[in-house]
Amino acid sequence: MAQKVTPRSEDYSKWYTDVVQMAELADYTPVRGCMVIRPYGYALWENVQSGLDRRFKATGHQNAYFPLFIPMSFFEKEKDHVEGFSPQLAVVTHGGGVELEEPLAVRPTSETMINVMYAKWIRSYRDLPVLINQWANVVRWEMRTRLFLRTTEFLWQEGHTAHATEQEAREETLRMLEVYRDFAENDAAMPVICGRKSESEKFAGGVHSYSIEAMMGNAWALQAGTSHFLGQNFARVFDTQFLNDQNELEYVWQTSWGVSTRMVGGIVMVHGDDQGLILPPRIAPLQVVVVPIWKNDEQRAAVLGAVQQVQAALPDVRLHLDDREDVTPGWKFNDWEMRGVPLRIEIGPRDVKSEQVMLVRRDPVEKRKQPLPLAGLAERVPVLLDEIQRALFDRAMRFREERTAHVTTYAELQEAVKLGFAWAWWCGSRECEDKIKADTKATNRCIPLAQPGGTGRCIVCGEEAVEQSVWARAY
Amino acid sequence: MAQKVTPRSEDYSKWYTDVVQMAELADYTPVRGCMVIRPYGYALWENVQSGLDRRFKATGHQNAYFPLFIPMSFFEKEKDHVEGFSPQLAVVTHGGGVELEEPLAVRPTSETMINVMYAKWIRSYRDLPVLINQWANVVRWEMRTRLFLRTTEFLWQEGHTAHATEQEAREETLRMLEVYRDFAENDAAMPVICGRKSESEKFAGGVHSYSIEAMMGNAWALQAGTSHFLGQNFARVFDTQFLNDQNELEYVWQTSWGVSTRMVGGIVMVHGDDQGLILPPRIAPLQVVVVPIWKNDEQRAAVLGAVQQVQAALPDVRLHLDDREDVTPGWKFNDWEMRGVPLRIEIGPRDVKSEQVMLVRRDPVEKRKQPLPLAGLAERVPVLLDEIQRALFDRAMRFREERTAHVTTYAELQEAVKLGFAWAWWCGSRECEDKIKADTKATNRCIPLAQPGGTGRCIVCGEEAVEQSVWARAY
Repeated sequence: MAQKVTPRSEDYSKWYTDVVQMAELADYTPVRGCMVIRPYGYALWENVQSGLDRRFKATGHQNAYFPLFIPMSFFEKEKDHVEGFSPQLAVVTHGGGVELEEPLAVRPTSETMINVMYAKWIRSYRDLPVLINQWANVVRWEMRTRLFLRTTEFLWQEGHTAHATEQEAREETLRMLEVYRDFAENDAAMPVICGRKSESEKFAGGVHSYSIEAMMGNAWALQAGTSHFLGQNFARVFDTQFLNDQNELEYVWQTSWGVSTRMVGGIVMVHGDDQGLILPPRIAPLQVVVVPIWKNDEQRAAVLGAVQQVQAALPDVRLHLDDREDVTPGWKFNDWEMRGVPLRIEIGPRDVKSEQVMLVRRDPVEKRKQPLPLAGLAERVPVLLDEIQRALFDRAMRFREERTAHVTTYAELQEAVKLGFAWAWWCGSRECEDKIKADTKATNRCIPLAQPGGTGRCIVCGEEAVEQSVWARAY
Repeated sequence: MAQKVTPRSEDYSKWYTDVVQMAELADYTPVRGCMVIRPYGYALWENVQSGLDRRFKATGHQNAYFPLFIPMSFFEKEKDHVEGFSPQLAVVTHGGGVELEEPLAVRPTSETMINVMYAKWIRSYRDLPVLINQWANVVRWEMRTRLFLRTTEFLWQEGHTAHATEQEAREETLRMLEVYRDFAENDAAMPVICGRKSESEKFAGGVHSYSIEAMMGNAWALQAGTSHFLGQNFARVFDTQFLNDQNELEYVWQTSWGVSTRMVGGIVMVHGDDQGLILPPRIAPLQVVVVPIWKNDEQRAAVLGAVQQVQAALPDVRLHLDDREDVTPGWKFNDWEMRGVPLRIEIGPRDVKSEQVMLVRRDPVEKRKQPLPLAGLAERVPVLLDEIQRALFDRAMRFREERTAHVTTYAELQEAVKLGFAWAWWCGSRECEDKIKADTKATNRCIPLAQPGGTGRCIVCGEEAVEQSVWARAY
């Protein structure tokens, strides 16, 4: 009997941890806050990486690699930055058996080191823009951790760009937010809201932060990617200057943007159900699992012959043949459903005779078995995978819409954030934002780029408000 | 005028650093021993990664990710391992603003953490083999560093496998050595000698180490990859056991193997010349650079029309159009030669009229310009790139053969290692090995798998010897 995950309705948090561990996405380690990403989880991350990396390169970015260690003094140069990050630093004090003259922080993010190098490399406007991304591990000391969602060490990409003008940098900030939206919605089948973070939620040291916010299966929000307009804040501190075309020295305008392994946790929580994972075909490590069924050697030979035809028909599909002999077909069905493989193909002796296979979709749209002629596989399976991809997005979008309220009174807001997302006018003051958090535990997720238009009254203080925010409980 | 690199004959070490910095492969940072890998160098590393990763997956391995931090007590469990690595550790003593109860080492390699996790995951022979690789950064504190070749932080892959039998693990060790040879020779055009390391040079904590050894342009050796048979050493210490098919508990048999960013330094040194880098087409970030030439707008339009035909003819080639207007074509020629792009295509107004382009190879085999009809590009360029790949391998092989001596007296050995590699009978004793090193600075690179056969007399002590070693100065 395959292991069963805790039902979501019973304990959502336990359901999440069960799924991540039983599907072998990740595991705890003896190092506080650090996880192991297991092969199945890492293959999912590799697909996230390649989906993002392809988009970064298509928008003109190049990868590079900067040091893991950052001298403590670099952090201290930017006041907001050090205040934001110093409580989270892991610090190396000894190297090669001796105490270091200056302790080294393990990078929590790389803006400071980037600026030291860019200040060296950038001379004139001809060197701009610099469009660099790095894939790396970072460390932020966390007291309460959760596999993928909040870990002391995590993997991410951090883009760091430098531009000659403010406008170019602002455009880049929004371009990369759009790249994240495109990846999240089209590859991860995860509907997101694009918006600006409030002052209290923005990146320490930046001017404006933007994020994509997704609704998880318990109707909480997850910030799944951020893009920051840094202005000239870091450039001024690190003297990152260039000669403009008038031969005058100017500070560069910068952006930074990141998506992390947290995205994997988001994918689990957006799509999974009580049987376990459900993975969107575009990023699923395995898109199709083939389970052969036989009772004797004669059947075995016939069935495996048909399996070969299936494999030959689907050369571009990530297909796995589960020919284990120590577990039953029924056990395998449960196991692969728990692991979220989008499509299962079953082949038994009767199917071989009828020159067909049985198809079973993992997504909840259509769970009964459908027979399909062997000859139709090559054409049908890619179409089915696309249908599943679309069905998962639509289902997540419907789920979000059903749990989103547009509220006009504070009482409505308080109720709405218990159930999901609430859109409400907000005057922009820290005071009103803090009150909502204190009263409801919901935070200001973002001020959506797509506003309803017009003006309204702040949901808290009643002052005139020009923008709505989305409020929700969040990871 | 483009920058000039220091000639190799003048100062080989300076030549190397010039090439790495001027070609923008890497740069120094303010953090001692840590470098930045710049976009052009990182693109080269990405091609090394994909060449290796493809081979790892084809031999059944999966990627995963283990923590950056390893509790100090883990190292102390394996006596040889801690002795070998503790002088090189970077140690985190503070996290989140407080002193840690137990300091954490930044991983120099992951055998200890791997075993802690494998001990948790492996139950029975059905769970074996475990074939896992990780792409990661590691830190080994170094006093004297050199870009790519020896840095405190470096990027690498580390494979870690666990097997039910000794024979399987021994086979895996050699299989991965062969994967490294195949990559080095076929993708990096770098001839290597496969062999076993001597006891004094083996991995701290292993049973046998194997390496691929390449000859650099100054006739020194570089260890470009290693594969270790770990026996049950770590399994015994960490209790990594499994139930065999007789239902008895046994320790697993393990291997580990790694290639690092050091490979990039090796590629620079094997192929480069006084003009700079020469990159083998299979791993070159850019395989072809197109330099258009014009004097007026009319010519410009005609030439750029031909450039589009070139681009359309070579969709699968990594091609870059250098259409900068602030530098001359001659400057571009020098610049791209310094950066080692294998093939240059020049197109000027006269070429457009003749419906041809001019081809210039970067490798020293054939440097004069060859005209080629535009219509022949699609067929000819891939063939030329293959020819260049082969020519670079042949040239490196010839260079190595010319600087390899098979010596029978100690005096010959002393002379031979000044010029390159020396093959000599060796009795296997540490004493004789140390004497050679003390007298000549040459070290025992490896005991080649391909032995001449028979027996001989140790080049130092004259005792009977059953194996020859390769001796050389080394990085």
